[in-house]
Amino acid sequence: MTTRADGRADDELRPITFTRGFTTHPAGSVLVEFGQTRVMCTASVTEGVPPWRRGSGLGWLTAEYSMLPAATHERSSRESVKGKIGGRTHEISRLIGRSLRACIDLAALGENTIALDCDVLQADGGTRTAAISGAYVALADAVTYLKAAKRLSDPQPLSCAIAAVSVGVVDGRVRLDLPYEEDSRAEVDMNVVATDAGTLVEVQGTGEGATFPRATLDALLDMAAVGTEKLFEAQRTVLAEPYPGVLPGAN
Amino acid sequence: MTTRADGRADDELRPITFTRGFTTHPAGSVLVEFGQTRVMCTASVTEGVPPWRRGSGLGWLTAEYSMLPAATHERSSRESVKGKIGGRTHEISRLIGRSLRACIDLAALGENTIALDCDVLQADGGTRTAAISGAYVALADAVTYLKAAKRLSDPQPLSCAIAAVSVGVVDGRVRLDLPYEEDSRAEVDMNVVATDAGTLVEVQGTGEGATFPRATLDALLDMAAVGTEKLFEAQRTVLAEPYPGVLPGAN
Amino acid sequence: MTTRADGRADDELRPITFTRGFTTHPAGSVLVEFGQTRVMCTASVTEGVPPWRRGSGLGWLTAEYSMLPAATHERSSRESVKGKIGGRTHEISRLIGRSLRACIDLAALGENTIALDCDVLQADGGTRTAAISGAYVALADAVTYLKAAKRLSDPQPLSCAIAAVSVGVVDGRVRLDLPYEEDSRAEVDMNVVATDAGTLVEVQGTGEGATFPRATLDALLDMAAVGTEKLFEAQRTVLAEPYPGVLPGAN
Amino acid sequence: MTTRADGRADDELRPITFTRGFTTHPAGSVLVEFGQTRVMCTASVTEGVPPWRRGSGLGWLTAEYSMLPAATHERSSRESVKGKIGGRTHEISRLIGRSLRACIDLAALGENTIALDCDVLQADGGTRTAAISGAYVALADAVTYLKAAKRLSDPQPLSCAIAAVSVGVVDGRVRLDLPYEEDSRAEVDMNVVATDAGTLVEVQGTGEGATFPRATLDALLDMAAVGTEKLFEAQRTVLAEPYPGVLPGAN
Amino acid sequence: MTTRADGRADDELRPITFTRGFTTHPAGSVLVEFGQTRVMCTASVTEGVPPWRRGSGLGWLTAEYSMLPAATHERSSRESVKGKIGGRTHEISRLIGRSLRACIDLAALGENTIALDCDVLQADGGTRTAAISGAYVALADAVTYLKAAKRLSDPQPLSCAIAAVSVGVVDGRVRLDLPYEEDSRAEVDMNVVATDAGTLVEVQGTGEGATFPRATLDALLDMAAVGTEKLFEAQRTVLAEPYPGVLPGAN
Amino acid sequence: MTTRADGRADDELRPITFTRGFTTHPAGSVLVEFGQTRVMCTASVTEGVPPWRRGSGLGWLTAEYSMLPAATHERSSRESVKGKIGGRTHEISRLIGRSLRACIDLAALGENTIALDCDVLQADGGTRTAAISGAYVALADAVTYLKAAKRLSDPQPLSCAIAAVSVGVVDGRVRLDLPYEEDSRAEVDMNVVATDAGTLVEVQGTGEGATFPRATLDALLDMAAVGTEKLFEAQRTVLAEPYPGVLPGAN
Repeated sequence: MTTRADGRADDELRPITFTRGFTTHPAGSVLVEFGQTRVMCTASVTEGVPPWRRGSGLGWLTAEYSMLPAATHERSSRESVKGKIGGRTHEISRLIGRSLRACIDLAALGENTIALDCDVLQADGGTRTAAISGAYVALADAVTYLKAAKRLSDPQPLSCAIAAVSVGVVDGRVRLDLPYEEDSRAEVDMNVVATDAGTLVEVQGTGEGATFPRATLDALLDMAAVGTEKLFEAQRTVLAEPYPGVLPGAN
Repeated sequence: MTTRADGRADDELRPITFTRGFTTHPAGSVLVEFGQTRVMCTASVTEGVPPWRRGSGLGWLTAEYSMLPAATHERSSRESVKGKIGGRTHEISRLIGRSLRACIDLAALGENTIALDCDVLQADGGTRTAAISGAYVALADAVTYLKAAKRLSDPQPLSCAIAAVSVGVVDGRVRLDLPYEEDSRAEVDMNVVATDAGTLVEVQGTGEGATFPRATLDALLDMAAVGTEKLFEAQRTVLAEPYPGVLPGAN
Repeated sequence: MTTRADGRADDELRPITFTRGFTTHPAGSVLVEFGQTRVMCTASVTEGVPPWRRGSGLGWLTAEYSMLPAATHERSSRESVKGKIGGRTHEISRLIGRSLRACIDLAALGENTIALDCDVLQADGGTRTAAISGAYVALADAVTYLKAAKRLSDPQPLSCAIAAVSVGVVDGRVRLDLPYEEDSRAEVDMNVVATDAGTLVEVQGTGEGATFPRATLDALLDMAAVGTEKLFEAQRTVLAEPYPGVLPGAN
Repeated sequence: MTTRADGRADDELRPITFTRGFTTHPAGSVLVEFGQTRVMCTASVTEGVPPWRRGSGLGWLTAEYSMLPAATHERSSRESVKGKIGGRTHEISRLIGRSLRACIDLAALGENTIALDCDVLQADGGTRTAAISGAYVALADAVTYLKAAKRLSDPQPLSCAIAAVSVGVVDGRVRLDLPYEEDSRAEVDMNVVATDAGTLVEVQGTGEGATFPRATLDALLDMAAVGTEKLFEAQRTVLAEPYPGVLPGAN
Repeated sequence: MTTRADGRADDELRPITFTRGFTTHPAGSVLVEFGQTRVMCTASVTEGVPPWRRGSGLGWLTAEYSMLPAATHERSSRESVKGKIGGRTHEISRLIGRSLRACIDLAALGENTIALDCDVLQADGGTRTAAISGAYVALADAVTYLKAAKRLSDPQPLSCAIAAVSVGVVDGRVRLDLPYEEDSRAEVDMNVVATDAGTLVEVQGTGEGATFPRATLDALLDMAAVGTEKLFEAQRTVLAEPYPGVLPGAN
Repeated sequence: MTTRADGRADDELRPITFTRGFTTHPAGSVLVEFGQTRVMCTASVTEGVPPWRRGSGLGWLTAEYSMLPAATHERSSRESVKGKIGGRTHEISRLIGRSLRACIDLAALGENTIALDCDVLQADGGTRTAAISGAYVALADAVTYLKAAKRLSDPQPLSCAIAAVSVGVVDGRVRLDLPYEEDSRAEVDMNVVATDAGTLVEVQGTGEGATFPRATLDALLDMAAVGTEKLFEAQRTVLAEPYPGVLPGAN
């Protein structure tokens, strides 16, 4: 029987850790680890909304993803130094923003913005799915903070939890949560963003240099559901602990 | 019974046209129309490959998507004037490139690049799916051109045809090929890139501000297959005509 | 006797076509063709004026010229991807704007802006003169649109028509409307922008790598007048047709 | 009789000064003054040519024009800080380069480049014509330097002198060498670049917000010829003095 | 007696921690903490040197400093998104590079580059001095790695250790290692980079909005020496432990 | 005894010249020369302050330093053309701004900005110290101008004079005011900004590729004091002359 290089079963996630309160300035700050992939996810509350949304009375949620230069196996160059953001960074930032906007009622924020920053400290495959899963925990903490600060018009603006996982076909087998070693040679690669209410938020499947039948897509989606269930459980467990910092009004 | 604003049935494409030989300088040049959406798709052959591919003996295929400022209902600002490419442009350019690379054997090109340019002259929803479908026809013409010029090591480097279509849930109904009026208020939106061999290349489904059950995903994929079948037929019909320009060696 | 490669007499224009209503979103949209040179010219009305003009009560007219990557014989790189606009693009955009501002009373617009976009779909010499000539027709349509929308304080803000043509010395002969094949080896090259009132708006003559006597300049200006007369006639003919779209208030 | 604010006759230049050897590092360095307009023009010789010219055996000449922030009546912002070059700067840089390439045989340079830098220290109208006239003197010095260094294959690569002057219609009168006060309200404005062989290099006439008859164009060209004659005389006088620095091989 | 908000004596450092092997891809990776200030410092070895150094046979060492958006009390915007690097970032990156180049013999590297990346995860004053002190430890690890890989021509290219500390005048008192709360209201602020051989590498003292006598400078330098001594001790202690990862050739 | 290449004693400045009224548009305009180093320093008064300072009632002072391309021995490329400002330029601009803000009471300006532009016409070492010393004279003239225009709430907002000088260790000797030939091979290099009240504003000492003992730092500071004393004397002498232009209200 073919086994994975790291000894996992095909439908097994890597060790998952969410460390809340990883840094102290943002309202939510989480270090998420999917095996060797480590992403610092923060949720900062800033006043005001983008120009096109002003006067609507609605808040906004935006996300920025970035890879530290030394996060990859070979050092990659810094986008601020190059003076422009690459297509991959743009694409993932937009995906994270869309995914997290699916769970929050922005009307409750008033004209304020939650900025999610997902900075990859170490990359080993699945950085975007780790970022989404971790950003949800940071967002939940920011909501707790805003609630304590009495800055929400609706006390529970989050309608569900959000998590994401990668699945793919590697060595002809459908596998869950691909590390870099598998991801770089996968025949098909899919990222699935789901809610703990059992629905889907975003599905992106791609066969770079290959194509795949509908049956494979179905098998990948089944496998992803196994992974997101476990992620929701891990999120629930860690969020059962009290807010890691000092809440406004606490004393 | 609810009908669509333009009178179509839910599973009906807009009128589809591919005009080959739309301009004369590039090896392939196609104006593709999905109803009021019109995209000029060209395939230009240039010598050399990107730095990271040099010395491999393999060719490359890349794509750039762009919206002319006056293509949209309200004029949008020009990205060259702003000095940077937006996230949406980046994301679609990458999608087109990945999609078309799925059908071509780049080894046959030697170290040459095919650049696909998809410039939207008029936008009415589905510009990325029209672009992919039209780019395939331009690519097929460029391959014919290269073959006549005896610049291919393999006489038939295309393994299949590629087409793409949008599907979505609008007014609670699963619909095919959304125009702007439907796209802008769709609850779920999905783009499906497929091959005429019956396989999938890329699936991107998203529920901005909403989520959707697996059953909806299945219904959307079924509906997309109806659309791509008709697109393959239209591509075959138009490509049955001779190459629209003068081939090298012809006289 | 020396004849031109395309069989034209020295003082003969290439076939000239203006297609109004080429696209439907902008108030004016014209495809202009000078032989194989094809430029899409649109006139879009947007609210507001640039900062330095605010509070003046006056409108503004601006122009942006751009070459699609596949418009040239060899594909040229996209300025949005390079992140900056080249000197040639800047220079032509400014020329188009200055030229068209010569015929319009901007006070009639109030603090609104007309943006002229001239995108070259196919280049075969004379793109800037085709752009100016086509932009005038798009502007005339935009004015018709604004008048119907009752957004003009003066019902006829256009004081004259504007057209432009290139002239040059090729093979020692003064010639009208140079295609790329002549333009690229012309000893002297001149662009003349004129009004149908018989006056000049802009004259740019240059002898790259050569110089020319005053007598040549005079002969070039005479030749240009022949060309602009025919262009005004073609503009008048096409503008005699009704507005190609639906005017505000029409029903 | 209408007189000019500075007391000059209509066909009179402002006081013209060329100071050679203004700085010591470049092969040619000239401060040119047209009245209160002062431009530092330098000619630097650098190894190599732009990529598109490599392997041709030919040299190249390029020019960059720039306005110091405090050169204008109101401080203008610095283009390096804005991160992009404006259209006007681009346009003038290109004009200076084209103009000076008209007098030099680039084959004599081998694959080397002469970079002309024209930095405006103080602006009072006519900065581009002063820049061209001063750049010629700097270029002549650079040629003397290269000849002494035995780096020219042809001992006299300059075929003529180049000078430029502005002319315009102000208060209904044709006038020579407009200062800012006249330039800013001129009805027609023309820049003429000429050679001391009596030929023209570049003619740019424009009527921003106005148009002009052919007769005016003729009068402007006549007036310009008066001005360039005097500029050639001034250039000859100053260049009759020895090279202002130390020539290679001198001791 | 005035005491500091955090209870420290004037000449007392905050708790200092160096965590080696913080991430695993770079040859050296250190999390340095000066109290609440936390900086991830990595040393990556890349092939080749900058163009101006090619062919010299010498290596190079460069540094890039960056602040994560959520590192500061109020979220700051991301420089890659703004498309340019700010002056402060530039200044600190250059300081770190100069400081670390003082301790290494670049000839030993051959034509290879060590890139130091200092990314601030959390900022509370003294980020540049923490970065320099941590970068030294990462550099020491990278040197150990290169030595094991037999890529050094000199087995001990480091001539000394480097550390840095901030000192300042706050509330009229000379104090060591200022946190943000003190730094933001310091009358004089100085950063001192020193070697464990007792010499200085860089001294930058500034009195923004104030000036200071020479005697104050002397007192600040005395105080800094107290701080750097303790930092060298901490570096020595942590570097006494074995290399935290797997060395080439180890098994 | 070792002598300097230009014959100066170790503690001797190069010939120092301040030419006030070098150009006429800005309120203050000074050409400062430290030997062959020549910098044009202007002080322009503009309305308004940066966004972060609006509503404070306080003015602002900012500085921009730039090197003309032909100012250096080998022509350097133009930062506006490269589209970004280099680290060295950023660093020096910030230093000049900080240094001059130390002598002025910005409250006296109201919400207006003084922009100091320091453009290096010719570089021969010490450009930043010449720029600071010259900028003070330009600032003093701008203050005189503003006072005459009755735009200051405090008639004497300058609390002291500012000058700067470089010192270094060359050939093992401490030397004052290094020209390029010494600067490029100095073992230690320091820039000292001081006030004529005997205090220090900024001290930046660096040993690129070397380190230095505290005793050297002390000797360098002593030497710098000798130089700044002479610079203050030269500033006082030149500022004893009347304002070089026409003051508001003068007639």
